[in-house]
Amino acid sequence: MSFAEFVNYKAVELARHVVRMTAAAGSGHPSSSTSLAHLTTVLMYHKMRYDLANPWNPLSDRLVLSEGHAVPIIYAAYADLGGVVGADPRHGRKLTLDDLGTLREIQSVVEGHPNPAFGFPFFDAATGSLGQGVSVAAGLGLAARMDGIDKTIYVLCGDGESREGQIWEAIDFLADQKLANVRVIFNANGMGQSDYVSPQQGPEALAAKVKAYGLRPITIDGHDPEAISKALSAKATGGRPPVVIAKTVKGWGVRELQQVGYHGKPLSAKDVEAALEELKLPALKPDLVLCPAMPKGEAPAAPAGPIAMPDPDFVALAEGTKFVGGAEKRKLATRQAYGLTLRALGRASPRVVALDADVSNSTFSEIFRKEFPDRFVECRIAEQNMVSVAAGLAAAGKIPFANTFAKFFARAYDQVEMAANTCANLKLVGSHSGVSLGADGPSQMGVVDAAFFGSLASVRTPKGHPACIVLNPCDAVSTYKLACLMASYEGMAYMRTLRPEGPFLYPPSEVFHLVGQKVLAKGQDLTVVAWGYMVLEARKAIDALKGEGIACGLVDAYSLPLADDFLEAIGAGEGTRLLVVEDNYAGGIGSAVATAAAARGNVHVTTLTPARMPKSGRTADDVLAYVGIDCGSIVQRVKAILGKA
Amino acid sequence: MSFAEFVNYKAVELARHVVRMTAAAGSGHPSSSTSLAHLTTVLMYHKMRYDLANPWNPLSDRLVLSEGHAVPIIYAAYADLGGVVGADPRHGRKLTLDDLGTLREIQSVVEGHPNPAFGFPFFDAATGSLGQGVSVAAGLGLAARMDGIDKTIYVLCGDGESREGQIWEAIDFLADQKLANVRVIFNANGMGQSDYVSPQQGPEALAAKVKAYGLRPITIDGHDPEAISKALSAKATGGRPPVVIAKTVKGWGVRELQQVGYHGKPLSAKDVEAALEELKLPALKPDLVLCPAMPKGEAPAAPAGPIAMPDPDFVALAEGTKFVGGAEKRKLATRQAYGLTLRALGRASPRVVALDADVSNSTFSEIFRKEFPDRFVECRIAEQNMVSVAAGLAAAGKIPFANTFAKFFARAYDQVEMAANTCANLKLVGSHSGVSLGADGPSQMGVVDAAFFGSLASVRTPKGHPACIVLNPCDAVSTYKLACLMASYEGMAYMRTLRPEGPFLYPPSEVFHLVGQKVLAKGQDLTVVAWGYMVLEARKAIDALKGEGIACGLVDAYSLPLADDFLEAIGAGEGTRLLVVEDNYAGGIGSAVATAAAARGNVHVTTLTPARMPKSGRTADDVLAYVGIDCGSIVQRVKAILGKA
Repeated sequence: MSFAEFVNYKAVELARHVVRMTAAAGSGHPSSSTSLAHLTTVLMYHKMRYDLANPWNPLSDRLVLSEGHAVPIIYAAYADLGGVVGADPRHGRKLTLDDLGTLREIQSVVEGHPNPAFGFPFFDAATGSLGQGVSVAAGLGLAARMDGIDKTIYVLCGDGESREGQIWEAIDFLADQKLANVRVIFNANGMGQSDYVSPQQGPEALAAKVKAYGLRPITIDGHDPEAISKALSAKATGGRPPVVIAKTVKGWGVRELQQVGYHGKPLSAKDVEAALEELKLPALKPDLVLCPAMPKGEAPAAPAGPIAMPDPDFVALAEGTKFVGGAEKRKLATRQAYGLTLRALGRASPRVVALDADVSNSTFSEIFRKEFPDRFVECRIAEQNMVSVAAGLAAAGKIPFANTFAKFFARAYDQVEMAANTCANLKLVGSHSGVSLGADGPSQMGVVDAAFFGSLASVRTPKGHPACIVLNPCDAVSTYKLACLMASYEGMAYMRTLRPEGPFLYPPSEVFHLVGQKVLAKGQDLTVVAWGYMVLEARKAIDALKGEGIACGLVDAYSLPLADDFLEAIGAGEGTRLLVVEDNYAGGIGSAVATAAAARGNVHVTTLTPARMPKSGRTADDVLAYVGIDCGSIVQRVKAILGKA
Repeated sequence: MSFAEFVNYKAVELARHVVRMTAAAGSGHPSSSTSLAHLTTVLMYHKMRYDLANPWNPLSDRLVLSEGHAVPIIYAAYADLGGVVGADPRHGRKLTLDDLGTLREIQSVVEGHPNPAFGFPFFDAATGSLGQGVSVAAGLGLAARMDGIDKTIYVLCGDGESREGQIWEAIDFLADQKLANVRVIFNANGMGQSDYVSPQQGPEALAAKVKAYGLRPITIDGHDPEAISKALSAKATGGRPPVVIAKTVKGWGVRELQQVGYHGKPLSAKDVEAALEELKLPALKPDLVLCPAMPKGEAPAAPAGPIAMPDPDFVALAEGTKFVGGAEKRKLATRQAYGLTLRALGRASPRVVALDADVSNSTFSEIFRKEFPDRFVECRIAEQNMVSVAAGLAAAGKIPFANTFAKFFARAYDQVEMAANTCANLKLVGSHSGVSLGADGPSQMGVVDAAFFGSLASVRTPKGHPACIVLNPCDAVSTYKLACLMASYEGMAYMRTLRPEGPFLYPPSEVFHLVGQKVLAKGQDLTVVAWGYMVLEARKAIDALKGEGIACGLVDAYSLPLADDFLEAIGAGEGTRLLVVEDNYAGGIGSAVATAAAARGNVHVTTLTPARMPKSGRTADDVLAYVGIDCGSIVQRVKAILGKA
């Protein structure tokens, strides 16, 4: 039996599994799956070098299924090969053909779309929201290069999916970074969900685009085993990987599935019978048995565990930068303090990697960049790609800090959510958060970030962590401490930093927890709860109120989720009055404190968030006043609550 | 004086304004601005046909400044020409050169980045978050074609900005739609913020890409007036517009500004003097005076005002569709009811346009598509482009309904926020919201949408509206009524629809308000507040509790923001117990009700949102139970609150 005969046999066998498992599930995407029958077989039985018994093996080639809905065919191959699954490397078990019958069941590891978080570690990233896989693969490839591991990252992409701009951000990135270890394969089956794909995504157009982006297209028949094998063996030229465009048939092997409109539909019981008739296995059983080769080499020793960091000495931290003066005067912007901390983390752990999207001189990741150019990844103005690359780096054991303006992370919220679904160990730091940046106006202000990331903070991952922890420090010391905690924490965290410079509020020895708060002042009349910039504004207000005989406390509620004992920890009891002030739209700590308080029903909480859309103003104070959250607004609100207005 | 001499004179004059106004503001982007000096002059003084006295004139050519930070040069030209500004067509005034000195002031119409919402109607969209302009221009171009208006939409894009994938989604869209009336001009100045642009975004690469995308690149010297004029006169071929790649100098005219790292920095007072020395006006004053020609033609009569819609008769609404049976049985999914409503709205108003991203057979916008193919815009799998195209359509007077899965709108949250900043009259409808879609798993579930859009709902636009209204109907009738209200409302609204079929809860004559709630049942022990799918689940729980002698009320809180009198309207007073249940992560109605209640301090609110990340499950019930919000969980929670567990 020849190689081609084996692949053809397996392709039929896998397609049969796909038809049955999706019918059993009552949903799923058999037509997309069978279009990948030969590509999957050549990859998983022959081309990829990987460790079936240990899917966590860092030396293994990886497969990213960007068109996640086609996953049944991957499950079929993996079960046929007896690959190991499990949420924990200590308790793996082989996936069986019987498991395929549990597709999409609530207890099953074989999810509707790929997700390592539910026990399928063959994958590195949750996919299913389209267009993200090439970026994830680029992150995996980058990590392998950093670690000196000789492996290949394969990524299967739909043609319709290639309409997503992120795919082309990723192709630009592959070319920029000369990532020779990534192999993109476009599955050009010509059909989308509701229609045929546009000619703009046809195989000729794809080839022309790939070439224009500086990579070499190789167009093949995606059901021809020899052609697939040869194309996947093509070498990179000048560091630039070839890109395979595989022409395939959606619903390969089953005529019923080949119609437009059959996307995402399993066959009925009757049609399954007919399909299995069509998908006839050759009489000859394979005498050639291919299975994946083991990966080569030895894994580099990866330092694990928390990163030990001393208390900060900002004058020392600022050495060699333009921030020595600020550190001496104890006046730094939190974004500056963060940049200095990032460099210190880079010195403390080789796992720390930084990414930026052409604003490193604003986020101050440039301080890290200068010292660690090999661990700094310039992603240019393409935030979606940056976040998914970071997710790939995280999957490969790095601690990636991705940086841009808080506002511009909104460009990648879908990618952030997918990384959260993956339980990715991702660190996101958004500068210029809130409205205090002033002059540039709302297009540059992170004001919905608190609600978005705060929403993720409300749920637990399968590992039991919040899907994201949100941090909003108000001074240099808390920025340092929280950034260090972020780095040591194995999970997703998002930190907001600020444009304006501010004073140091905490001594270097202050102890922080990732989820927590600090009582900065006590006062019998009312307690102001704030985070980030608003702690500074609230301090001013409290001073002003003191002059009028009103005693207010102040809490720095720097994290979301709130600690479970938040109200107790700040001493809130029967009849306590709280005023929560934020420089973001509602959905941040105000909502969280109100939710905690309303569950008790005896704590009075007033929330103060921007009342109207911000606009440009020459100073932070102008804008804070415009949206009604400046010192004067806080003073007024406190007096109104206390009936002293 | 020749044309070229005039343009060169004006370019210097405008650059001088730019240098002075950004220095006065103490911030801004003079280097990007002056790179556009000649392009701006040729466009605004010569090429564009537009109505300086009436920037709202629908016949005028339009300019979209995708690289929004370069806006000072546009302000300079507009002030020099005496164009009208103002938030209201009845109260316009001419922009003066003195106004330029107010750049970025809190009271000024000349914002840090373009935004029509603050009184600069020359622009159609807020820009400043990069990569969105070509899509907006495509929407404007599409609307002009629909309306039979012969005008041209020009769009200026940065080269570094072209790294954003959305630009290429938009170029694909121009090719697909054969939008001959859109002229994209890449400002290839070779510099980004933190570095030179990648060769991937160099002029040669841009030309190759444009060609690969099926459009014709024209590369020119962007400081050569004749070359610019000629390039902008190039005709479309086969409906496909040419794309101009203009090589320019960042910081043109001022050596100091031409360094990398000078992005976004004004000159110091001393450097302003030197710059003005460099920017010497020719001794000869222009004897040729160019100013824009008036637009041609007559504006089509545009129907305005609310769309009158009768009470729904779903059997009639479903005529000709496969949903007649469901309508007869009074069992429809809200996404089905929405599709039927959209068609009815299309029949009632020619302004209604629908967009979809290759899932029209899931969102059921296909019902509209079949009847109104000319008003249906297939955007393929590119949600970012879809949302910005819709914003362009809205700016041109259409009522665009953009459709995709609730989850996939997350791909375009930045675009949504920019549209909110524009006060765009945009309607977004996300299907498969919440976790009830079950089998496909979290990659397809809209669960952060409530927090994101809810956050926008918390602030007011300059027009006094919420930046977005969120609607989450639970049955066919409320879906119909709210979709009709959405269509008549001039502002942004987002509606969630559901995958599973459900019963009709409301009679066809029920009266809804865009912001409001419905008391469905009263009960003395506790009131459950829910929206969308959870109203159905809560009904089941309340029935079960009744059997155990517990009397619960039920409120359908279908909108965010909540009505100002929400607690009064549902009869909540001292000691009332509320349980708010949602199928989205925290940040939706639970936070809003808790915020309202905690401000009083005497209403007890418990919130119930998914406790953990959802996974695939074969049925909605499986997933609801897994995340802890199914009927049984509600029953249990109610009993716990009442101390009867």
